[in-house]
Amino acid sequence: MANSKYEYVKAFEQPDVLLPNTWIVVRIDGRGFHKLTDRYQFKKPNDRRALDLMNAAAVEVMKDLSDLCIAYGVSDEYSFVFHPSCQLFERRSAKLATTIASTFTAHYVFLWGTYFPDTPLQPPYLPSFDGRAVTYPCIKNLRDYMSWRQVDCHINNLYNMTFWTMVLQGGMSNTDAELELKGTVSSDKNEILFKRFGINYNNEEEIYKKGSVIYRQYQLDDVKSKSVTPDEGNYMQETTSKSQQEKFRKLRRKAQVVVDHVDIIKDEFWDRRPWILSGKPGKLPTEA
Amino acid sequence: MANSKYEYVKAFEQPDVLLPNTWIVVRIDGRGFHKLTDRYQFKKPNDRRALDLMNAAAVEVMKDLSDLCIAYGVSDEYSFVFHPSCQLFERRSAKLATTIASTFTAHYVFLWGTYFPDTPLQPPYLPSFDGRAVTYPCIKNLRDYMSWRQVDCHINNLYNMTFWTMVLQGGMSNTDAELELKGTVSSDKNEILFKRFGINYNNEEEIYKKGSVIYRQYQLDDVKSKSVTPDEGNYMQETTSKSQQEKFRKLRRKAQVVVDHVDIIKDEFWDRRPWILSGKPGKLPTEA
Amino acid sequence: MANSKYEYVKAFEQPDVLLPNTWIVVRIDGRGFHKLTDRYQFKKPNDRRALDLMNAAAVEVMKDLSDLCIAYGVSDEYSFVFHPSCQLFERRSAKLATTIASTFTAHYVFLWGTYFPDTPLQPPYLPSFDGRAVTYPCIKNLRDYMSWRQVDCHINNLYNMTFWTMVLQGGMSNTDAELELKGTVSSDKNEILFKRFGINYNNEEEIYKKGSVIYRQYQLDDVKSKSVTPDEGNYMQETTSKSQQEKFRKLRRKAQVVVDHVDIIKDEFWDRRPWILSGKPGKLPTEA
Amino acid sequence: MANSKYEYVKAFEQPDVLLPNTWIVVRIDGRGFHKLTDRYQFKKPNDRRALDLMNAAAVEVMKDLSDLCIAYGVSDEYSFVFHPSCQLFERRSAKLATTIASTFTAHYVFLWGTYFPDTPLQPPYLPSFDGRAVTYPCIKNLRDYMSWRQVDCHINNLYNMTFWTMVLQGGMSNTDAELELKGTVSSDKNEILFKRFGINYNNEEEIYKKGSVIYRQYQLDDVKSKSVTPDEGNYMQETTSKSQQEKFRKLRRKAQVVVDHVDIIKDEFWDRRPWILSGKPGKLPTEA
Repeated sequence: MANSKYEYVKAFEQPDVLLPNTWIVVRIDGRGFHKLTDRYQFKKPNDRRALDLMNAAAVEVMKDLSDLCIAYGVSDEYSFVFHPSCQLFERRSAKLATTIASTFTAHYVFLWGTYFPDTPLQPPYLPSFDGRAVTYPCIKNLRDYMSWRQVDCHINNLYNMTFWTMVLQGGMSNTDAELELKGTVSSDKNEILFKRFGINYNNEEEIYKKGSVIYRQYQLDDVKSKSVTPDEGNYMQETTSKSQQEKFRKLRRKAQVVVDHVDIIKDEFWDRRPWILSGKPGKLPTEA
Repeated sequence: MANSKYEYVKAFEQPDVLLPNTWIVVRIDGRGFHKLTDRYQFKKPNDRRALDLMNAAAVEVMKDLSDLCIAYGVSDEYSFVFHPSCQLFERRSAKLATTIASTFTAHYVFLWGTYFPDTPLQPPYLPSFDGRAVTYPCIKNLRDYMSWRQVDCHINNLYNMTFWTMVLQGGMSNTDAELELKGTVSSDKNEILFKRFGINYNNEEEIYKKGSVIYRQYQLDDVKSKSVTPDEGNYMQETTSKSQQEKFRKLRRKAQVVVDHVDIIKDEFWDRRPWILSGKPGKLPTEA
Repeated sequence: MANSKYEYVKAFEQPDVLLPNTWIVVRIDGRGFHKLTDRYQFKKPNDRRALDLMNAAAVEVMKDLSDLCIAYGVSDEYSFVFHPSCQLFERRSAKLATTIASTFTAHYVFLWGTYFPDTPLQPPYLPSFDGRAVTYPCIKNLRDYMSWRQVDCHINNLYNMTFWTMVLQGGMSNTDAELELKGTVSSDKNEILFKRFGINYNNEEEIYKKGSVIYRQYQLDDVKSKSVTPDEGNYMQETTSKSQQEKFRKLRRKAQVVVDHVDIIKDEFWDRRPWILSGKPGKLPTEA
Repeated sequence: MANSKYEYVKAFEQPDVLLPNTWIVVRIDGRGFHKLTDRYQFKKPNDRRALDLMNAAAVEVMKDLSDLCIAYGVSDEYSFVFHPSCQLFERRSAKLATTIASTFTAHYVFLWGTYFPDTPLQPPYLPSFDGRAVTYPCIKNLRDYMSWRQVDCHINNLYNMTFWTMVLQGGMSNTDAELELKGTVSSDKNEILFKRFGINYNNEEEIYKKGSVIYRQYQLDDVKSKSVTPDEGNYMQETTSKSQQEKFRKLRRKAQVVVDHVDIIKDEFWDRRPWILSGKPGKLPTEA
């Protein structure tokens, strides 16, 4: 019994290969997390367990897909970045986005009990994530994307912290706090925190203020010796030999995947870790 | 601190809205399941626990997304079908595909222990699924798609059953079995099973031969009274009132989601369940 | 000297094949025709020479591309329709749209002198047309598209006719006429034409009121004998033999391409010319 | 009579905006030019009148669309390049491709008589061009695209010249010439030309060997003073003021559009004309 009679339906599947030689960012977002955080009583304004769980799941995605060069997470979202030279799944958009959304979800659900030992998942209310792949033509655009997310992290965190301090410590109603914060700028919120509650926002934990950045760790560059920005341009005719590629793959597998909470807007972060933008692994840190 | 400086990066996100008034099929496939079935020692040729787990996860997806009208699963793949009138997520392709892949994964991982109580998941080897959304312009194309998957199920199952019987009961090597089966047609395989091993393929369980179809259950139509195919055409100007839509939603939520192992190639299945193709819920079955 | 070093750039060309089994409409629009009609002093509200030129160019496009089943034109726009079974240029969107825009332009420029013998084209002010290909999944959607264009024709023509009669015959300023027409409905405009200028809109020429429809002419169906709408559904597995296809091609080449100014909103037009929607040529009209 | 009933059909038009901050190349190709060159008896291997007509039409397209920064033509094809900062037609792919194909066609048909005074166009055999828009993320990719076309020009021209010399001067049959040239490399062809026919390929006209490049002419840079490649990166937040943009527009309109037949593979061409890649007009040449 051949299947030829129906196989014509395969022709409806349309190609969705992403433009070559561009940065690919797959961003996933928690689906309906407002409800979810209520149901599982996430702490306000930040629940450290929830962020640690996000990071743990993201680390597993980074380990699983060695083509990824960096990831950045804040709140219930995570952005995963593929290098312009990446050929994974022939750069098919849906395949990249679903693989990351699904792999992340698998680890998130699996690890839930580790981070929320007293709050078991209650079906059918399980966490899930949607996602999409977006391409950026140059390093400047990619870095601006990353900066956009980190600035957003800061803006939201300052707002949320001020709001919840006013509500939880200040005894204000949600509505009153919202009303008072309307139209305020950063300095206003800093002042409310400091004057009313004695809180210095700068002393807050970096993970809340900066979000989380994940990458493979190699030997850091001496920032002073830094001379040139990574060679931008064409990554499509890399003359990397097969053996070289194999060596790269091994280096990536050996490298530790680290979670950091640092500024990724300024140059320093990128200058000291040139392997992220170059797409070529650095030297493994020497043991002490 | 406004974020306007970096917000331009949003412009890189390209629209991916699927053509209106078409059937949407999101098919997900197990990622690297060959390795996975080895690691967790799935039984050959079919592992009932694994299929039941697939079905259980798919049922949860159907319950979660009431816009879905039918789903069909075989082996480590599942196809979920949205009606042409569906407006979920504004019909954005990536959002639909990732939501289904992620939600399915969440339930699959969560329910693993129920179906494999003695084989706990071993990180980082977790199951994950990739997916894609494909559109079909008319009922004929959609039904041919469904038929394609069910014929595939049959072809693969007959092959796998014969192969594994030759290996496991017949003591042949994998290579020898493969060699002998090369170029055989269905009747050859039926004969091998029957003459050598006394197995009548027709008596095998329906779930293996037909795969699994999932839908909402309403009162079946008397097939004899069936007169017309569902009105095909334009679903974009449905004059369904808001209250009507609300009623539909409630009926969908109340309807039982059932798992069936039946022929979906012939007309009968569809004729008796007109709500699947019409997109309008039927009458809830009356209690006895 | 091989070209292999640079050939990788071909990979940037992304596929743009239109969804199979859908109607394809390529609509072209005059580019900057407001200025153009001023420069070449087109008559207001309608310039018969300009419409005849549009139609003449469209007829040539229909003759050139025998895959086209119908075209509809009004003002400086023309819509060309390909049948769902069409495989021309593998259904590549850009190729279809540019071929039609370019072929139309070639004939429009070439025929200009025939229709505007006293108004030669003055470079660089040459007419040009942009275009786009849009797909429609079913006959209902396609016919609604055609109806949309014809209703638009009527609305615009009634407005323009009333406006220009008020200005040219009534001596009103453009601004005053515009102001008075603001918010009026069809009956208001009919009344202005009739009461003030003694013009019965119904007696106006059909080409202005209905636009122009172009198709291949075969023997008309007796509308009374008409029983069924053309079989909608799947056109992808047509079992048309090669010799049958060749016969069709010949019939299409032999058929006269006619320009009509008739209602295409009601069923009658389509019922009497079943070949347009079926995609299969009818019988050539018998000679008297 | 409102048109709202049918207006839903507009929803089928799908967005086709090209990725921001990328180079856009619209390449057009003569449709069925093999037949056309026979019909109008183009000279072999090159018809100077035909190339001059192509260039004249391309010059008009460049003048019409001041967003274009360079164009390159060979045989019956032309590539038009928009800068990454280009926002014309909101970067809609179909609109860009059809506009260029149509505008080029208009001028080509209109100017035909100037270049082929003794060979009038014979309807329905009119020239037309199809086209497509392709994006390139960086200067390297764009230049490699341009190099690809110019290398192709050289390869084809050397082949065609040798072939037609063997046929027209050498009296060989087409088949014999084709057979002899099969598998030959450049040096073989050069030798055939020189030894058998006394033709030094290097002395052939540049237009045949190099194709035609069209750009706006400003004051050339002293190539020695050249220090840096144009700043690559992000063109989306150009802080160009409105008055600055207006100034740019005027400079582009004033600049002469020139046709050149020079090497565009090496750096020199681009280094001396930095305005092409920078997207910013240079200084108008001072009058002597």
